[in-house]
Amino acid sequence: MQNTLSGWDDTIVAIATPQGVGAIGVIRLSGKDAIAIIDRLFASKELTKQATHTLHVGLLKEAGIVIDEVVVSLYKNPKSYTGEDVVEISCHGSPYVQQQVVEACIRMGARMAKPGEFTQRAFLNGKLDLTQAEAVADLIAAETEAVHQTALQQMKGGFSNDIKQLREQLIHFAALIELELDFGEEDVEFADRKKLEDLVDEILHSVQKLIRSFKLGNIIKNGVTTVIAGRPNAGKSTLLNALLNEERAIVTAIAGTTRDTIEEKLVVNGIAFRLIDTAGIREATDVIEKMGIEKSMEKINSAGILMYVFDVNTNTEKDVLDDLEKLQQPNQQVLIVANKIDTADKAQLDQLHAGIHAFNKDNRQVFEISALNKTQIDELVNYLPSLVLSEKINTGQTIVVNSRHYASLLDCETSLLKVQSGLRSGISGDLLALDIRHALQALGEITGEILHDRDILGTIFGKFCIGK
Amino acid sequence: MQNTLSGWDDTIVAIATPQGVGAIGVIRLSGKDAIAIIDRLFASKELTKQATHTLHVGLLKEAGIVIDEVVVSLYKNPKSYTGEDVVEISCHGSPYVQQQVVEACIRMGARMAKPGEFTQRAFLNGKLDLTQAEAVADLIAAETEAVHQTALQQMKGGFSNDIKQLREQLIHFAALIELELDFGEEDVEFADRKKLEDLVDEILHSVQKLIRSFKLGNIIKNGVTTVIAGRPNAGKSTLLNALLNEERAIVTAIAGTTRDTIEEKLVVNGIAFRLIDTAGIREATDVIEKMGIEKSMEKINSAGILMYVFDVNTNTEKDVLDDLEKLQQPNQQVLIVANKIDTADKAQLDQLHAGIHAFNKDNRQVFEISALNKTQIDELVNYLPSLVLSEKINTGQTIVVNSRHYASLLDCETSLLKVQSGLRSGISGDLLALDIRHALQALGEITGEILHDRDILGTIFGKFCIGK
Repeated sequence: MQNTLSGWDDTIVAIATPQGVGAIGVIRLSGKDAIAIIDRLFASKELTKQATHTLHVGLLKEAGIVIDEVVVSLYKNPKSYTGEDVVEISCHGSPYVQQQVVEACIRMGARMAKPGEFTQRAFLNGKLDLTQAEAVADLIAAETEAVHQTALQQMKGGFSNDIKQLREQLIHFAALIELELDFGEEDVEFADRKKLEDLVDEILHSVQKLIRSFKLGNIIKNGVTTVIAGRPNAGKSTLLNALLNEERAIVTAIAGTTRDTIEEKLVVNGIAFRLIDTAGIREATDVIEKMGIEKSMEKINSAGILMYVFDVNTNTEKDVLDDLEKLQQPNQQVLIVANKIDTADKAQLDQLHAGIHAFNKDNRQVFEISALNKTQIDELVNYLPSLVLSEKINTGQTIVVNSRHYASLLDCETSLLKVQSGLRSGISGDLLALDIRHALQALGEITGEILHDRDILGTIFGKFCIGK
Repeated sequence: MQNTLSGWDDTIVAIATPQGVGAIGVIRLSGKDAIAIIDRLFASKELTKQATHTLHVGLLKEAGIVIDEVVVSLYKNPKSYTGEDVVEISCHGSPYVQQQVVEACIRMGARMAKPGEFTQRAFLNGKLDLTQAEAVADLIAAETEAVHQTALQQMKGGFSNDIKQLREQLIHFAALIELELDFGEEDVEFADRKKLEDLVDEILHSVQKLIRSFKLGNIIKNGVTTVIAGRPNAGKSTLLNALLNEERAIVTAIAGTTRDTIEEKLVVNGIAFRLIDTAGIREATDVIEKMGIEKSMEKINSAGILMYVFDVNTNTEKDVLDDLEKLQQPNQQVLIVANKIDTADKAQLDQLHAGIHAFNKDNRQVFEISALNKTQIDELVNYLPSLVLSEKINTGQTIVVNSRHYASLLDCETSLLKVQSGLRSGISGDLLALDIRHALQALGEITGEILHDRDILGTIFGKFCIGK
């Protein structure tokens, strides 16, 4: 299996730390020549004679010329991330030095690693299953606690165990069907048919519970697009600033990550709300290409939450209802924000309260705020999670966050539903066995125990960063 | 010394790898509680009982909640970078996880390290002298081989040894003067006066050699600003592209480093030529603020090399000489580039050759090229280093690259010149001794053996990156 997949006899090298300048950079090698390659560059020590899990300080040299003073970490197979011999070189954190170290390793016989290739080798060597490998990528991309904890749980094998249990139940079920098959010819009484039905119901229930968790998993992983819309001067930008200026609002601005200029991120209870200020879009029309705008508009139309802002002093009830009629999309949660209550008089507020029943249609909640004075902003922010979650996130439970897993679970469900109805309509055991095999296969593909389509590995690991 | 400078009893923590997303990130701790702090978060191992220079894989947890699966590197004092107990944590390379690890360490009693504080502690603990510490920062910022090799040489103590030797010679000299002082009252014959003069000449010679090397050191470290100027359609941008499109031209575009938009970098023989296309500046006038332009113009006027381009088909000899009259600055090397020779006829080329003696004034070299066809581009590029260097860079010799060292060497020279003339004019030994002390002090400040102004440490280490 190994040789066919990745030219397995070679040694791979890559920079494992983020791009750019830092105190240190780490270059990672894995493969059967990893130690020999570094021995050629790090002559002061004979790494082959050193114990695994040890650190060695010295000069990395090529042809007598010092590349850098480095620390070498030694992991001998099988006690390493990939299961192969692994050497990590900590050098000074200049891109120039890191590049020199990589090039020297390549001249000594290593080759540049492809994205995710270290983790792919870990998978192929049985150090991780596929869901655990995928969790590594999620962990690296994690920007919120919920994503982080879900990925950790998955990496530690939480999800794999659930799938393993389901497979065991299905195998047990298959064995019972076999039994039925064996005795089928004899036309015996099937005392266990009810038991079989109960069993498939139970398995189906577990699979459907996982499937349902994907809605939450998707929200955790991708966040919820939240559009702030309203007429000019309704206070959209002031509201956006009020939402973001609160201390709890974590606005991430990490160097090197692509960031949509019209999108700001607000994290509440571990959920990332991606706030889009539509005013920003309109003002940007002259500089951004039309295509970009259209893409943004699509995003807005498919947003999970529409936060409609109006000015209680100038916008009428009819204005609000007309706008919502135009803006609100199917399946979109709507929040109506009555702004500028600080400058409204009693008559205006009475009028607002009188019209509130019309606003409340479709579970639309109304918040009376002053974005300027930050009145009711906390309440508004804390309300947001309830719009997308029916319960608090419990990262201890298994949550499906990966669309590949979701697709396989749906496949599994389809097969199990066939088994269920087949049992009820009394079809023959060998037909049932076929559907059970499909269900088993769908589950096996999740963890990678069964891999009919090997291209899937390229798809999965190709999304990783280099050096992992 | 230690306690007064840095609140020395505490343990510092910082992310040591570059900002951003990568396969792994490294968090570094140093101080007397470094091991105890990690023991609280890494309960599976008792690090206090583990040997130094060992690696430990496990879960980092706080209050029962897993932060990440990590590898911990253990360096027990004094065998560490800082000389203190040092622990490095390799975690998954998401900014979120790294931040969580740092925050957990802070809750366990560490405090955030200031820029360069690890290296500052290494210096204060006598692991490095000041020139070696400064070389660490240069090494991290190195973008070319020459900077890299010079910094490595300095980090390994090459420069310190030179300074130490000079100090020893001066101390020997001081001892001779003391001898003279002791016998001064007795009005003895000074048989050694000639010997003293020779000795101070020798020391002065060495100091002046180091001072002269700074011209080269500065070029190595900061590169040479090279302006490409000429009339519209002379082919400035085509020339720039031709210079940069050659394979040898290393154009760095590292994410996260600030880059002047109108500046491109061409590295030849380890020297970075910072090419400025003046066309780019003119075209940018409507978008960049006036102040920015003025700053660029200052840069151009103070550029080391003026590369003047003209079109042999349309620009006359008088055009060229008029332009140079206006553009050329004092102390600026000038290169005249006669462009578009591919479309010139014999008469035009003859005319060019006839006028070349006027061009050649002030050592101005003329290159006849075709930027479009890349004719003579290699020759032009390879000629560039000779404009700023009289000899090939020998990174094995000591080169002063640091302006602080340069300033101290100038101080030292001033004092030595006073000693020299004092000796010649026969002033008294105690006055000579005062100047010798000044000279010794200036040298001592370079390596940090003498530090009268402790703020200097803040200035030096404040320029480091966090985590180093």
